Amino acid sequence: MIDIKDLYQNIAVYMEKQVTLQGWIRNQRKQKDFGFIDFSDGTYFKHIQLIYDKDTKDFDKIDKLRIGSAITVTGKIQKSVGAGQEFELVIDDVLLEGDCPEDYPLQPKRHTREFLREIAYLRPRTNLFQAVFRIRSVAAHAIHTYFQEHNYVYVHTPLITTTDCEGSEQMFKITSLNMNHIPTFDGHIDTSKDLFGKQAYITGSGQLHGETFAMAFKRIYTFGPTFRTENSNTKTHANEFWMIEPEIAFCNLEGLMDIEEEMLKYVVNYVLDKCSNEITFFDQFVEKGLKDKLTKLVNSEFMRISHHDVIDILKKANVQFEFTPNYDEDIAKEHEKYITEYFNGPVFITNWPKDIKAWYMKTNKDGKTVAAVDLEVPGAGELMGGSQREDDYQKLINRAKEMNVDINAVDWFCNLRKYGGCYHAGFGMGFERLIIYLTGVENIRDVIPYPRTPKNCDF
Amino acid sequence: MIDIKDLYQNIAVYMEKQVTLQGWIRNQRKQKDFGFIDFSDGTYFKHIQLIYDKDTKDFDKIDKLRIGSAITVTGKIQKSVGAGQEFELVIDDVLLEGDCPEDYPLQPKRHTREFLREIAYLRPRTNLFQAVFRIRSVAAHAIHTYFQEHNYVYVHTPLITTTDCEGSEQMFKITSLNMNHIPTFDGHIDTSKDLFGKQAYITGSGQLHGETFAMAFKRIYTFGPTFRTENSNTKTHANEFWMIEPEIAFCNLEGLMDIEEEMLKYVVNYVLDKCSNEITFFDQFVEKGLKDKLTKLVNSEFMRISHHDVIDILKKANVQFEFTPNYDEDIAKEHEKYITEYFNGPVFITNWPKDIKAWYMKTNKDGKTVAAVDLEVPGAGELMGGSQREDDYQKLINRAKEMNVDINAVDWFCNLRKYGGCYHAGFGMGFERLIIYLTGVENIRDVIPYPRTPKNCDF
Repeated sequence: MIDIKDLYQNIAVYMEKQVTLQGWIRNQRKQKDFGFIDFSDGTYFKHIQLIYDKDTKDFDKIDKLRIGSAITVTGKIQKSVGAGQEFELVIDDVLLEGDCPEDYPLQPKRHTREFLREIAYLRPRTNLFQAVFRIRSVAAHAIHTYFQEHNYVYVHTPLITTTDCEGSEQMFKITSLNMNHIPTFDGHIDTSKDLFGKQAYITGSGQLHGETFAMAFKRIYTFGPTFRTENSNTKTHANEFWMIEPEIAFCNLEGLMDIEEEMLKYVVNYVLDKCSNEITFFDQFVEKGLKDKLTKLVNSEFMRISHHDVIDILKKANVQFEFTPNYDEDIAKEHEKYITEYFNGPVFITNWPKDIKAWYMKTNKDGKTVAAVDLEVPGAGELMGGSQREDDYQKLINRAKEMNVDINAVDWFCNLRKYGGCYHAGFGMGFERLIIYLTGVENIRDVIPYPRTPKNCDF
Repeated sequence: MIDIKDLYQNIAVYMEKQVTLQGWIRNQRKQKDFGFIDFSDGTYFKHIQLIYDKDTKDFDKIDKLRIGSAITVTGKIQKSVGAGQEFELVIDDVLLEGDCPEDYPLQPKRHTREFLREIAYLRPRTNLFQAVFRIRSVAAHAIHTYFQEHNYVYVHTPLITTTDCEGSEQMFKITSLNMNHIPTFDGHIDTSKDLFGKQAYITGSGQLHGETFAMAFKRIYTFGPTFRTENSNTKTHANEFWMIEPEIAFCNLEGLMDIEEEMLKYVVNYVLDKCSNEITFFDQFVEKGLKDKLTKLVNSEFMRISHHDVIDILKKANVQFEFTPNYDEDIAKEHEKYITEYFNGPVFITNWPKDIKAWYMKTNKDGKTVAAVDLEVPGAGELMGGSQREDDYQKLINRAKEMNVDINAVDWFCNLRKYGGCYHAGFGMGFERLIIYLTGVENIRDVIPYPRTPKNCDF
């Protein structure tokens, strides 16, 4: 029993030999006296062609095998006579493992992505989703491997939390109580009756907890699911998504950008190397020029420029923007696009106006900006967001108060600055954003196995 | 700037050279004219000793550095004069990065684990938790590496779900509604007003979703957090924990045991290789004989025996069990212990009475047992649980009805049996259970960064 992957990787070993494969019939082209079966076992992007004719044992049975069926097939590997493939399998014997009806929803024709979302449990069998989800898996491993090889500790920060770090109105509440009989006290929910004795949430970020481990292990990263209640139906928003959040002690903003750049190039290289068939497929059928885009990124030096200087460039641009660029404000998608095209490559934008960024970011000496950095990449906009963290206890507390953060809930986080704190920095990368960038597949619903979006939590 | 890890791994390169390190003071032993600083940067289990004397620049400043402080230190690496370490650093210069007060909770003395749980954000700085959480990180990477090298696809199954697979009374409900103003309809919660338009949960297993991907990629695994509302205060229960759930198409129970055994040996070997200092520490201070236990596991062949034959052995045992062994029932912890001692090694127990196992497991020909397997290991009890899955559509539906599963909610899962289904199998491994086994640290609260248990959701 071998995999199709073994065949493609060691064809010399198997040529002219008999092998047994197990997998699924993706297509069946029957002629009167012979036929071709397009066969996939999910271990490799490419399929293999099975051929049979009137002389094949059980011709009548093989001839009737339906698309979607699971089979065990034995036969000899030979050089392909026809065009389109290097080798093929001449069937000696077939065992039907699992039949598939004529009305199987996944017929070998073009389906819309909207339709495929409705059969999310079957869509990984299509070429498109075979490619997307294998790249997702390989990219995840690339990320782990990069950080482990660079001596980071992988930390499983908690999903359930009572720390309201990004604003609880954006977090799902969880409860073990009966929703039809919520116990109340003085007209309010009596959370003391709940499992944790207080209101708990599922988290939108592991950063605060991650920092506590960075102060012990120097370099850490998280990689796990995060949640937002945002009621937003766009191509880039989902209510459940995966994030990578590295945090590094003794690291400033420049050092952080070095790490972000090195990590991203490592991951892109890794995927180009391990998923060349998938990348070629996306380049041909999804985003023309994808391979060039990725290859160029790996070989480019990322630009570094301040938010202030970006606004300068935007103001001087001979373009009628929908939103006027402003030194005190965030930049819009149209601005991101202009800037990455202006520099013709990835751009780190640093030192943002403090009032549009999070409370824990380090205030620069100007008192107006924070040591934050967003990485903008051509075609995908913001891919990572990070900052040096405020490491002065009093400044952090003051900033928390200014921004209405509940200090009592994050006293432990603030205490890190009292107990051997140091300058440190970290960033977050939305994993789906990376997959969108790597594949050219634009809708977040098509890069998550089972996407959760408003009014949509099927399967 | 280098890491302590670099020193230990390439001491020949750095001997007699000046280096700069950044990290934290773990202890400070001062004499009148000289002193020793125990220094750690979190990159390696072993610390390094910094030495200084009256001739050192800023002696008076260095002498006053407090435990817990973050420093940047430059000095020359030399062979150690004293016992206890091979080399040490003679301080040339120190920069205080972050001070630490005298009342720092983590003084260099023995603290109880209970106390350390109360300062969970500081405990990773102790030797014990440095070792636990590095092993946790390395073991996680070992698992990813094993599966990726064996051509499994890593699948991020959804955390938010409306599928009630293990029984919703065990699942946390989630909501974006205001808990103080739950909208009602006919006296019941009006879930149509909630973000997903229905009651959603956070999941206790990714298995059902995992199977849909196994039917496309042949071999898949999940590795993510899972949740249970269990109101149970034991050493082995937490309400949030991490699980690994591989699922393999064209795999029967024997094949599944082969995979479980190979995977576990791989992970144990990997940790023994990469974390030898940590394992030695646990062997000395936490579980005497740990290293032997792990080495023996790697070299043993796991026993395979049916539940029926296990009960036979238990019945014949000359032991007064608290619970009488019974052919129709689960086995108790005392039985697990007896059996692993009886065979003096890991034991796969197969073919369990169907009524004590899950609805989706394959019923054996006897009609009474299912093709399930639990792996019992000496000293830790059940480490993995798996089964061949029922692949007959009608049998699965019948079993679901018998066990009161809501078939409408899992129709997509059942349909896998209609659309090219095949014999397949999978297992689940609780990641914390593995870490307990690898470290000898007995309480699940001490192997999770921020444990969540009833009435306990701090930080």
